[in-house]
Amino acid sequence: MPNPPLTLGLIGAGRIGRVHAEHLRCRLPEADLIAVADVDEAAARACAGQFRIPVSTADYREILADPKIQAVVVCSSTDTHTEVIQAAAAAGKHIFCEKPIAPDLVRIDQALAAVHRAGVLLQVGFNRRFDANFRRVRQAVVQGEIGEPHQLRITSRDPAPPPLEYVRRSGGIFLDMTIHDFDMARFLVGSEVGEVYATGSVRVDPAIGAAGDWDTATVVLKFVNGVVGVIENSRRAVYGYDQRVEVFGSGGSINADNNYPNAAVVSGARSIHRDLPLNFFMDRYLESYLQELREFVHAVQTGGPSPVSGEDGRAPVVLALAARKSCELNRPVRVADLG
Amino acid sequence: MPNPPLTLGLIGAGRIGRVHAEHLRCRLPEADLIAVADVDEAAARACAGQFRIPVSTADYREILADPKIQAVVVCSSTDTHTEVIQAAAAAGKHIFCEKPIAPDLVRIDQALAAVHRAGVLLQVGFNRRFDANFRRVRQAVVQGEIGEPHQLRITSRDPAPPPLEYVRRSGGIFLDMTIHDFDMARFLVGSEVGEVYATGSVRVDPAIGAAGDWDTATVVLKFVNGVVGVIENSRRAVYGYDQRVEVFGSGGSINADNNYPNAAVVSGARSIHRDLPLNFFMDRYLESYLQELREFVHAVQTGGPSPVSGEDGRAPVVLALAARKSCELNRPVRVADLG
Amino acid sequence: MPNPPLTLGLIGAGRIGRVHAEHLRCRLPEADLIAVADVDEAAARACAGQFRIPVSTADYREILADPKIQAVVVCSSTDTHTEVIQAAAAAGKHIFCEKPIAPDLVRIDQALAAVHRAGVLLQVGFNRRFDANFRRVRQAVVQGEIGEPHQLRITSRDPAPPPLEYVRRSGGIFLDMTIHDFDMARFLVGSEVGEVYATGSVRVDPAIGAAGDWDTATVVLKFVNGVVGVIENSRRAVYGYDQRVEVFGSGGSINADNNYPNAAVVSGARSIHRDLPLNFFMDRYLESYLQELREFVHAVQTGGPSPVSGEDGRAPVVLALAARKSCELNRPVRVADLG
Amino acid sequence: MPNPPLTLGLIGAGRIGRVHAEHLRCRLPEADLIAVADVDEAAARACAGQFRIPVSTADYREILADPKIQAVVVCSSTDTHTEVIQAAAAAGKHIFCEKPIAPDLVRIDQALAAVHRAGVLLQVGFNRRFDANFRRVRQAVVQGEIGEPHQLRITSRDPAPPPLEYVRRSGGIFLDMTIHDFDMARFLVGSEVGEVYATGSVRVDPAIGAAGDWDTATVVLKFVNGVVGVIENSRRAVYGYDQRVEVFGSGGSINADNNYPNAAVVSGARSIHRDLPLNFFMDRYLESYLQELREFVHAVQTGGPSPVSGEDGRAPVVLALAARKSCELNRPVRVADLG
Repeated sequence: MPNPPLTLGLIGAGRIGRVHAEHLRCRLPEADLIAVADVDEAAARACAGQFRIPVSTADYREILADPKIQAVVVCSSTDTHTEVIQAAAAAGKHIFCEKPIAPDLVRIDQALAAVHRAGVLLQVGFNRRFDANFRRVRQAVVQGEIGEPHQLRITSRDPAPPPLEYVRRSGGIFLDMTIHDFDMARFLVGSEVGEVYATGSVRVDPAIGAAGDWDTATVVLKFVNGVVGVIENSRRAVYGYDQRVEVFGSGGSINADNNYPNAAVVSGARSIHRDLPLNFFMDRYLESYLQELREFVHAVQTGGPSPVSGEDGRAPVVLALAARKSCELNRPVRVADLG
Repeated sequence: MPNPPLTLGLIGAGRIGRVHAEHLRCRLPEADLIAVADVDEAAARACAGQFRIPVSTADYREILADPKIQAVVVCSSTDTHTEVIQAAAAAGKHIFCEKPIAPDLVRIDQALAAVHRAGVLLQVGFNRRFDANFRRVRQAVVQGEIGEPHQLRITSRDPAPPPLEYVRRSGGIFLDMTIHDFDMARFLVGSEVGEVYATGSVRVDPAIGAAGDWDTATVVLKFVNGVVGVIENSRRAVYGYDQRVEVFGSGGSINADNNYPNAAVVSGARSIHRDLPLNFFMDRYLESYLQELREFVHAVQTGGPSPVSGEDGRAPVVLALAARKSCELNRPVRVADLG
Repeated sequence: MPNPPLTLGLIGAGRIGRVHAEHLRCRLPEADLIAVADVDEAAARACAGQFRIPVSTADYREILADPKIQAVVVCSSTDTHTEVIQAAAAAGKHIFCEKPIAPDLVRIDQALAAVHRAGVLLQVGFNRRFDANFRRVRQAVVQGEIGEPHQLRITSRDPAPPPLEYVRRSGGIFLDMTIHDFDMARFLVGSEVGEVYATGSVRVDPAIGAAGDWDTATVVLKFVNGVVGVIENSRRAVYGYDQRVEVFGSGGSINADNNYPNAAVVSGARSIHRDLPLNFFMDRYLESYLQELREFVHAVQTGGPSPVSGEDGRAPVVLALAARKSCELNRPVRVADLG
Repeated sequence: MPNPPLTLGLIGAGRIGRVHAEHLRCRLPEADLIAVADVDEAAARACAGQFRIPVSTADYREILADPKIQAVVVCSSTDTHTEVIQAAAAAGKHIFCEKPIAPDLVRIDQALAAVHRAGVLLQVGFNRRFDANFRRVRQAVVQGEIGEPHQLRITSRDPAPPPLEYVRRSGGIFLDMTIHDFDMARFLVGSEVGEVYATGSVRVDPAIGAAGDWDTATVVLKFVNGVVGVIENSRRAVYGYDQRVEVFGSGGSINADNNYPNAAVVSGARSIHRDLPLNFFMDRYLESYLQELREFVHAVQTGGPSPVSGEDGRAPVVLALAARKSCELNRPVRVADLG
């Protein structure tokens, strides 16, 4: 390894923050995580202890003030993202930020402007782009294995809805859940979406409807390059985490199935069966969380472009807002009308 | 078998007519096909010779006039369907008629009224309902294996577009191709469609666009019972006939894959691969053509309801018209506004 | 079709005889089945009635005496096969005979000598060679898709054991059940077997052991061309008819799975499952019974070689005898020592 | 975690040693790897540097002399295993030792006696037992999902043969390669093998034959509990690492397929295909290497039995010797006759 390790600070020591901490400390020799901050100082301290991180603090500004730290990983609560991004950019730190940047475009645009002014690298945490299945699908599209793409389908269903309290603060299914699929759609097709038609319904839990949200959705995306995509969402698939995609093109199609905990199939007296797919994102996407940080470190070290840029972070938010509007109006909505 | 065989006449000795002739003569001992008519008298004669049918004629009215004949199988060209149905009903014959009944609702309604007045049984040739895969999916829905259905997906792609001449007379992709999927959607969900949103594009062959049609389509169906369905169509899948469905519900999902000519998988130095799926409808759906006639004969003999009624023949035409209108207006169209 | 249909007589109107009757009457226009014989005259008459066969008789010699009849299909009980073959050969009829020709080599050799003297064509009813899966595997071997073959595996399990009375008369598992797999092994590898090592055990039903037979077996075949094959048999697989093969070679491998009644997969709350495979040979191999007769008729009409010759009928009997001896001696047995 | 971490020393810093080092340092918080030894002192130092191990040495006796060290992981060359085991046992250290313990039974028995006298825990590195697929198969057998087991099949093929130099020192295919399958067979069936019949041939590379070894083998195992197992080996599968098992029983069967780098399937104009399986053991079995150490640490900390005991390490060596003898004599060999 020609480069010395990249020194990083972690901001936010919650669940996803600790996943990143483990990866940075143990599985990425090219990285050196030397400080962790959390408004809950005990959480920061516990994380530092578990992963042998030298410094812990309650104030993320201490991390930004440390000249040894070259980059930060932002896992604090969503409503703090733009503030932290702006401060980090001002401090000249490269930034890895969990998705979404923010639920509104004004704050996103302020943050992106700050990043741009500072000339630092920003990567948004759309980890699914780094999943082996979806990478293989993207590769097939890019390398022309399926010719010119015509149709896209994304099936994305969670094993169970989040707590109602979470639903209420989530910004709605399109901003909270479909946002990953909007990003995946752009990633796989390699083109921008021009128009969105969305339907939402309440099929899983009436309380979600009472909270003003939908739990089931079907979205049609018309891409600028002529591809038409469909996203199917549900907050509850009893068989577990359902994460599949299919791209159909002039030269064939490619279809990525779910991942399973094992490849064993039982032939019994009543059916041929196998175990359920990996249950949720920490199992299904664990390796992708590692890979996205590996590529972040590499991009910073090589001055390369961000694998998931600030604009990539902004676009799915626009699509989520368009989908919500389409549902409310029951008609297709042009993305250009949104922002 | 307690019943004597049902005596039938065949009207139309083209490709699908000869398939029915073989099944009626050889594979359905409960049926006795005793006459065949075709405006092309040589075709009628050839068909009679090949399948040992006693009588052939150029005039289907001779069949209707034969008091020994209890039922007719109508495989003449689509534009003659309603005329033949009305005449057959008037003659008191039970009727199996190929799809679609007609491309316009006025003529369909006249034909259905005639059938109703005569009290004969009419079955429309939506053969895919009798395919083992789709029957299994329907069974899962009916028996509650997947709970209450929430989302439906139908993937329906042909191996290659029909001749341009055919496209021009076909009534368009929705009436010619998607009509099978509209029927399948109603069959699988067991509810009526309230609203249609359709997109059409020309991706396969510009000449199809020049002929005023689309060759690629994505359609969203909102059912009265709350299910949201998606149909994906293309006139050309290079890998062959792509005929899959998936129904997702509160208790699980069921997914029917394509059928293959064999179950052999080759592990080679570059990939793990298998042969392409069965190429087109005569291979994929051959058994369903037999089964639909078996059930027609049974329904007539037992006075039972028609497995695919006149109303089942009318509804997909309405959906096709709604889809075309939705494409043209680029907005969802309420089915009730169509007819 | 340049040829007039081949005229045939059917000898034996039991279950498999009636399958052949239906195929010859209804699905093979190149064949004309004009007589049926069965020692049970009522059975012959019923078969003739069901399939509109002009002549029925209790005495198969009447069929052999009919100069219009060119070929016979022999489905009488196994102990009559060699007698009927010799008489049919003497009468100059081409012969399709169900497997096995006979359980002992002396009688087989007498029958084959008679066929040879008469110059008629003899095809033995190893129908599995005509199954689409196994044909595809054979094709891969012949065309070099998997390079030079090194290892073969045949998994062959019945859904349930036959009645004990049948077991007692069957000649034992190797002559009754494995014989199909011995034929399949020779067919797929395209070489002769030089040595057999077999194990037999009683795991399914002690009564089978008490009857002097095994119900579970594993057999190793060393082919002259160096391939080593394994056959796994069981008289009872609770999940149904298990009929799979795999050939591994220097350039890859090919693996044929079971066939299923439908391609639907259910994702439920406890497992991902599908229906059991086709339950037994009449479902799994129905099309192969049609295809073997089609090729028999073609071979007779073109003077071509028999698709499954008398020698192909004899060889698996030798292997069955070798396997039994290997079990008894618990050591490998050279095939040359048997016959 | 109630326990303080288990302190360990690593003996041998080659490829597998470094895999264990990474796992012990980074992925197993319950373990603390504090020293590494290698006769090649530079290798020990490099390993210590990469994984921040405090102490490195050329002499493994320094590790055994350190009273802080509770357990050792033995990854030195196979010919040193029994010497190191005996010294470690004498020093009161618990021992994880790579397979095989030794290629001859006298030395194995001396080592096991030393372990027994010292009362330390010994685990042998049969990592495949910890693979998710095989664990699931074992679970099915133990929990009675497939009833009583009758037949076992293990397919085990490497992507390419090792260097000839390695082949010459390997002890032969049965001791070097099949040994894993012998262990797997005992693990899955849960019974001892009473008799072995083996065939070996040279199909991959004549140079392997010239070196006195086989590169292709088929082995039949008769277990004491009546199960009959088959192992198929090849030194070269062009499609990659082929590691599958199937257990058939009175209540069904369970079948574990290979693992793949992704779940994407491409439908192209010529075939339906997917990428090759994971190529070799470091990819396929990576997680199992982690899991075996996790269970070793747990067993030491809880005083529990060894997950893979010294006797489990000895038994496959006996089977390998029996297989070699069977090949040489071309007859079944009773295991009791070996040792």
